[in-house]
Amino acid sequence: MDFSLSPRAADLRDRVRAFVTSEVEPVEAETHRRITRLRESDGDQWTPDPVIAELQAKAREQGLWNLFLPAAHAGSYAADFGTDGGEGLTNVDYAPVAEAMGRSFLAPLVFNSNAPDTGNMEVLLRYGTAEQREQWLEPLLRAEIRSAFCMTEPAVASSDATNMAATARLEGDEVVINGRKWWSTGVGNPDCRIFVFMGLSDPDADRHSRHTMVLVPRDTPGVKVERMLTTMGYYDEPLGHGEVSFDDVRVPAANVLLGPGRAFEIAQGRLGPGRVHHCMRAIGLAERALELACARALSRTAFGKPLASLGGNRERIADARIAINRSRLLVMHAAWLLDQGMSREAYSAVSEIKVEVPLMALDVIDMAIQLHGGGGMSDDFPLANAWVGARSLRLADGPDEVHRNVIAKIELGKHTA
Amino acid sequence: MDFSLSPRAADLRDRVRAFVTSEVEPVEAETHRRITRLRESDGDQWTPDPVIAELQAKAREQGLWNLFLPAAHAGSYAADFGTDGGEGLTNVDYAPVAEAMGRSFLAPLVFNSNAPDTGNMEVLLRYGTAEQREQWLEPLLRAEIRSAFCMTEPAVASSDATNMAATARLEGDEVVINGRKWWSTGVGNPDCRIFVFMGLSDPDADRHSRHTMVLVPRDTPGVKVERMLTTMGYYDEPLGHGEVSFDDVRVPAANVLLGPGRAFEIAQGRLGPGRVHHCMRAIGLAERALELACARALSRTAFGKPLASLGGNRERIADARIAINRSRLLVMHAAWLLDQGMSREAYSAVSEIKVEVPLMALDVIDMAIQLHGGGGMSDDFPLANAWVGARSLRLADGPDEVHRNVIAKIELGKHTA
Amino acid sequence: MDFSLSPRAADLRDRVRAFVTSEVEPVEAETHRRITRLRESDGDQWTPDPVIAELQAKAREQGLWNLFLPAAHAGSYAADFGTDGGEGLTNVDYAPVAEAMGRSFLAPLVFNSNAPDTGNMEVLLRYGTAEQREQWLEPLLRAEIRSAFCMTEPAVASSDATNMAATARLEGDEVVINGRKWWSTGVGNPDCRIFVFMGLSDPDADRHSRHTMVLVPRDTPGVKVERMLTTMGYYDEPLGHGEVSFDDVRVPAANVLLGPGRAFEIAQGRLGPGRVHHCMRAIGLAERALELACARALSRTAFGKPLASLGGNRERIADARIAINRSRLLVMHAAWLLDQGMSREAYSAVSEIKVEVPLMALDVIDMAIQLHGGGGMSDDFPLANAWVGARSLRLADGPDEVHRNVIAKIELGKHTA
Amino acid sequence: MDFSLSPRAADLRDRVRAFVTSEVEPVEAETHRRITRLRESDGDQWTPDPVIAELQAKAREQGLWNLFLPAAHAGSYAADFGTDGGEGLTNVDYAPVAEAMGRSFLAPLVFNSNAPDTGNMEVLLRYGTAEQREQWLEPLLRAEIRSAFCMTEPAVASSDATNMAATARLEGDEVVINGRKWWSTGVGNPDCRIFVFMGLSDPDADRHSRHTMVLVPRDTPGVKVERMLTTMGYYDEPLGHGEVSFDDVRVPAANVLLGPGRAFEIAQGRLGPGRVHHCMRAIGLAERALELACARALSRTAFGKPLASLGGNRERIADARIAINRSRLLVMHAAWLLDQGMSREAYSAVSEIKVEVPLMALDVIDMAIQLHGGGGMSDDFPLANAWVGARSLRLADGPDEVHRNVIAKIELGKHTA
Repeated sequence: MDFSLSPRAADLRDRVRAFVTSEVEPVEAETHRRITRLRESDGDQWTPDPVIAELQAKAREQGLWNLFLPAAHAGSYAADFGTDGGEGLTNVDYAPVAEAMGRSFLAPLVFNSNAPDTGNMEVLLRYGTAEQREQWLEPLLRAEIRSAFCMTEPAVASSDATNMAATARLEGDEVVINGRKWWSTGVGNPDCRIFVFMGLSDPDADRHSRHTMVLVPRDTPGVKVERMLTTMGYYDEPLGHGEVSFDDVRVPAANVLLGPGRAFEIAQGRLGPGRVHHCMRAIGLAERALELACARALSRTAFGKPLASLGGNRERIADARIAINRSRLLVMHAAWLLDQGMSREAYSAVSEIKVEVPLMALDVIDMAIQLHGGGGMSDDFPLANAWVGARSLRLADGPDEVHRNVIAKIELGKHTA
Repeated sequence: MDFSLSPRAADLRDRVRAFVTSEVEPVEAETHRRITRLRESDGDQWTPDPVIAELQAKAREQGLWNLFLPAAHAGSYAADFGTDGGEGLTNVDYAPVAEAMGRSFLAPLVFNSNAPDTGNMEVLLRYGTAEQREQWLEPLLRAEIRSAFCMTEPAVASSDATNMAATARLEGDEVVINGRKWWSTGVGNPDCRIFVFMGLSDPDADRHSRHTMVLVPRDTPGVKVERMLTTMGYYDEPLGHGEVSFDDVRVPAANVLLGPGRAFEIAQGRLGPGRVHHCMRAIGLAERALELACARALSRTAFGKPLASLGGNRERIADARIAINRSRLLVMHAAWLLDQGMSREAYSAVSEIKVEVPLMALDVIDMAIQLHGGGGMSDDFPLANAWVGARSLRLADGPDEVHRNVIAKIELGKHTA
Repeated sequence: MDFSLSPRAADLRDRVRAFVTSEVEPVEAETHRRITRLRESDGDQWTPDPVIAELQAKAREQGLWNLFLPAAHAGSYAADFGTDGGEGLTNVDYAPVAEAMGRSFLAPLVFNSNAPDTGNMEVLLRYGTAEQREQWLEPLLRAEIRSAFCMTEPAVASSDATNMAATARLEGDEVVINGRKWWSTGVGNPDCRIFVFMGLSDPDADRHSRHTMVLVPRDTPGVKVERMLTTMGYYDEPLGHGEVSFDDVRVPAANVLLGPGRAFEIAQGRLGPGRVHHCMRAIGLAERALELACARALSRTAFGKPLASLGGNRERIADARIAINRSRLLVMHAAWLLDQGMSREAYSAVSEIKVEVPLMALDVIDMAIQLHGGGGMSDDFPLANAWVGARSLRLADGPDEVHRNVIAKIELGKHTA
Repeated sequence: MDFSLSPRAADLRDRVRAFVTSEVEPVEAETHRRITRLRESDGDQWTPDPVIAELQAKAREQGLWNLFLPAAHAGSYAADFGTDGGEGLTNVDYAPVAEAMGRSFLAPLVFNSNAPDTGNMEVLLRYGTAEQREQWLEPLLRAEIRSAFCMTEPAVASSDATNMAATARLEGDEVVINGRKWWSTGVGNPDCRIFVFMGLSDPDADRHSRHTMVLVPRDTPGVKVERMLTTMGYYDEPLGHGEVSFDDVRVPAANVLLGPGRAFEIAQGRLGPGRVHHCMRAIGLAERALELACARALSRTAFGKPLASLGGNRERIADARIAINRSRLLVMHAAWLLDQGMSREAYSAVSEIKVEVPLMALDVIDMAIQLHGGGGMSDDFPLANAWVGARSLRLADGPDEVHRNVIAKIELGKHTA
């Protein structure tokens, strides 16, 4: 057993971390304020912010670009599209890099490693045809365009993905799409040009073969972003989450990914690494919250003492340290298991981190908010926004309850013949 | 021991509840959307919304007006300003009414019983001169104007109120005010005309006699609302929370409340009932969240069953019911103790509810959000906003940690000679 | 709403409390040690301890005897068997008395108000024939004999009472009893002469009409106490919990309570007040633990400060105070609802306290143990034993999970037509 | 990063696990009952049980003996005293072996790897003279004798070790020992022949140089085991915890370990690996509890379903799996850090596991108890005893609160110059 990072992972983590600390965090607050001003003057908070393009260029120059590209599937894309070292990273090597990016809401985008684009690029890498990769993957890898993933629906409990009722029916050499999706992250951004849509194609097929994934260019007639949603008051610019209606939208059958009825097969492959990324970013957020909490606890004075010396504050800081450390190890282990190949243990591990990490991050961030008093609830600190991000993670990619059920099924399965 | 409500309390609770359910809840979502549209078109979400004035008129007609006026201090104001029955209510009688109002973010304003106006009106009732009452209390009771309370400061840990550094110095027959306050609730509203300001007047006096409370009309030169703050992305219109600077602001010495150096004396009297109101409103919010959770659990289906039949959902609903019921009783008991006159037991009780209730409400609302999936995070349901409101309560009027310390001091005091 | 105790309840509570503090607590430790010595010398810890008989005599003299007798069913028994004031108490009046008794593991027995004798006496009062009452109730009220309740079975999940498989079949004018029961509390005591047995009488009847309750004198041939059980190492003398086998035990059909197939009907009536008693005693235990914790926190010094000034100890003491107060109010309210007559609300309330109170008591006692260090785990303090008692309550009279289900059913029922 | 066990660790873990499962677990219940019978017949539960000697012989034969001997200090003792492979194990290699032993209360003793003997042997290895090692270490390694560690005192808060007041004064060539210790584990066992005593030798020295560690043979005049203590009713045979008085006990100055005033230096070296062992054994216990919980959940039926399909049981099983996995990784990481040499990070990590693991184990075991109903509280299952063992760990080797303070100090230290 060896808990040390590989030299490459350590180096990338350090460089990304340094970039985030010196380049991204200092512009975070002003960027947030600028977006807010835009939103409140004419509702056009979605105008691309030039600061992001500049930072992207700088990150790309330093080879800190598309680092998410997975060793297992990256092929020549890693070398061709800027990943430092020219090879895709394993999950265990990418995880600490993702943690470093997670510190700032802007950072993942800056390194072209933000959800849902990473997941969509992975899907195109693994399941896309050469044409699909040329048309959509390459511009995504160059950050010329953005993408969305259209899965969850307002009208059904989407925690059970087989509930999905929007349709993607094959008619001749076309796919005809109808229905309504929401929480389609990325659609606020005007660069978001391509949607990965998952819909019901054959209601009579086997439960996990009823749905099909298909590429839908945003400008296809019948596609309409009905509104942008808030999560606890935040629009999460510059990507945003939208509600999208599809009204008799027609795309060529060649836009189907992998094949009709194979959406669940794709979803499974997509979600393991994606959840590792989400969780490691949440750990980065929790670490930053703990840093802010410590700094505040040492600098503010009440009743004649620094907050760090009052009541249970030190105990809460200790508990936060324990919680972050144990969660990080759990995610690193899950990443390592995924690198060993999919197994029941890896499958359980991914669900375990999906339950554990957001809850942990919420606790740590909430503690930091409380130590910051009223300021912690405001946007003077990145804590309120961080809390909301972590809270969303308890729902995104499957609510806790669904993941607990997966874990229990595997655990109980060890005790049945 | 008798847990039944008095006939008057039961009647008022039922009527307020019916009003909220039939008049306020139905317009809540549209009002929220309208405010959002105003905010995003030209940042002018603070324009008074006509719907509120209409509802206020209707509430006043039905005698559901200024119900917060306390039996102990209301005098003839209750009869003169519309309280049903013509007499102020005891805390124990008002508490269930406050719960009913707490269901909707709009309702307290509709009944002219919203913080911080209630607290400010109480202060004027108890400590105001006849002139002060005529000039400020009466228009407040008629809802012609609104008020703010300027206490917390950005530069110091305001959990220790003696930290307050903004100054209110007496110079001849004037008070000269300098400094910066934030989380001044109400200043977003253009009708908010009068600020109750608490500042350091005599740094050499005894620790609890250094501060003075003074009435500062908003239009006094030197008063400036610097910005409106968000709590987790929400501006909490139509009142809002502002940061306010005071730059050599001069008001007549006659604007001092009770007397120089007596701010803590006023604050103590103000906070007991105010915390009962806050807590009962939070219980109303939790009840509504539980209702929404039950409705959702019964109406949504996943994995072939209603959510209510899946995993731990029923247990969580049960725990929510237990938590709400026990918290309500704790608040009712605190209200009753306050009605018996201030005592160490009442003092502890007020801190107990201040710790217990917001934490309880957060748990219940969070459970409801989780049952609603992504929708629970959005503004399609009042849950996200409710969560943020309850979270703020863990900081407003003293953070949990300060209240726990008060309780422990009283508890340990029983064991020392 | 009036939270003050009735004069009679306050007086009885004060007198019982004084008796427990001055007469019972001082002999608790020595009694525990004496029992331990007996257990370890010849395993005969079950010899009745003369100290208990002496204290019983004294309690009886003072009229603090059979106070549990319920206003609703006590009839002349209250006056005839020593209850102070000659009338049975309402649940709301008895509850604070039960709390006072709960402080010491010995006290309920001293006041002839211990489980399961109280429950058995109530059953005899409500459902017993004149003969049954004369033969068994009267000696129980005089504490000449003790009783047991034989319900739970080792071979089935007894949380579902309809699982009970031991049989009580009517054959002519006899009932023939077979099977095995455990956790029959009281059977360690040699004075325990009568068992209330619940068994399957008609497997084909309606689910809640299959079982019959029958009185089985301990000396009936075929009854055998197989062993005494420990709860976490404790035998809980002087009553104890036994496993009892019934091998073709025959008693007259006249021993049936209420009638064949009516066991569930009896069980329902029995359990409401019994759960109130259990919970109020647990609150007494928690109060005592908090007292011990405070005394310890003030008297022990580490790192140069009393424990009360270290880390989160004061916050934990505050949380304990909140938790006890809110739980007590919940129980008092449940008692009051029971006094108003059985309703869905009362039914839910009884389940609510059954979930809430033991968990609360466990937290408080555990905190007190932690503050006592190693000593807290030993029998030098009553805390370890108290914890175990509270832990058992999460299982006795229905595990938490079953009660949560009851509460959820009632709650969700409000939202279905 | 590599999470796979070394081949040697995997092999030893598997063999120890198999031995525990096939040889120890099957005799556990009967051994417990036999000890109980002895205790209750004549109080002589301390008679060595022949089964243990037999199992020890078998373990030794298989090379599963003294596996705790640390790579860093074992020298030739590992080869000479039976450790499989002839070399001491690193912490990270021993940790999974300790987990396997932790499954059964008997197992550590069977493998001669139980506390406090392991800690005492380590102290002798690292700090003992050749004479001390020959006289005491070698018979300990052969399990011919047992040892105790006399540190905690009844009269002072021993969580602050500098509070220790029992004295060990050097007078000429003797050490004179006076005072009272408790929670001296092992003294119940008649083979326990040597006590490692820590006492105040120079009250005027620097705070961490006042105490001295000295070897005190049990048969030295003036040494008296006053009584055996229970932890929640358990004596924890066959070792037990005693209260020991030292009345003018005189031993040669040559019995001093390392040197006068150096007790804290020794204690620090002793505690890191010891806490890893404790924690890994607790994880073994938690794993066993989860296995029992799953088996019970699948085999018992209530309300027509297996318990596994009722309410929140599956979620609780999932949470237990998450909790065990994350705790194990945290301990493995701490072990690995210790293997890299002592550092602030390692120092924090040891305190982190000491807080995290017992709390985790308590939750998992408690859940398993609850699923077992009344049986879970009894000694029919090893759960009640396991819970008590885990609870003790929250106090032994420093209470949680002290460890949290250590962690917070290190964490806050990162933010101060």
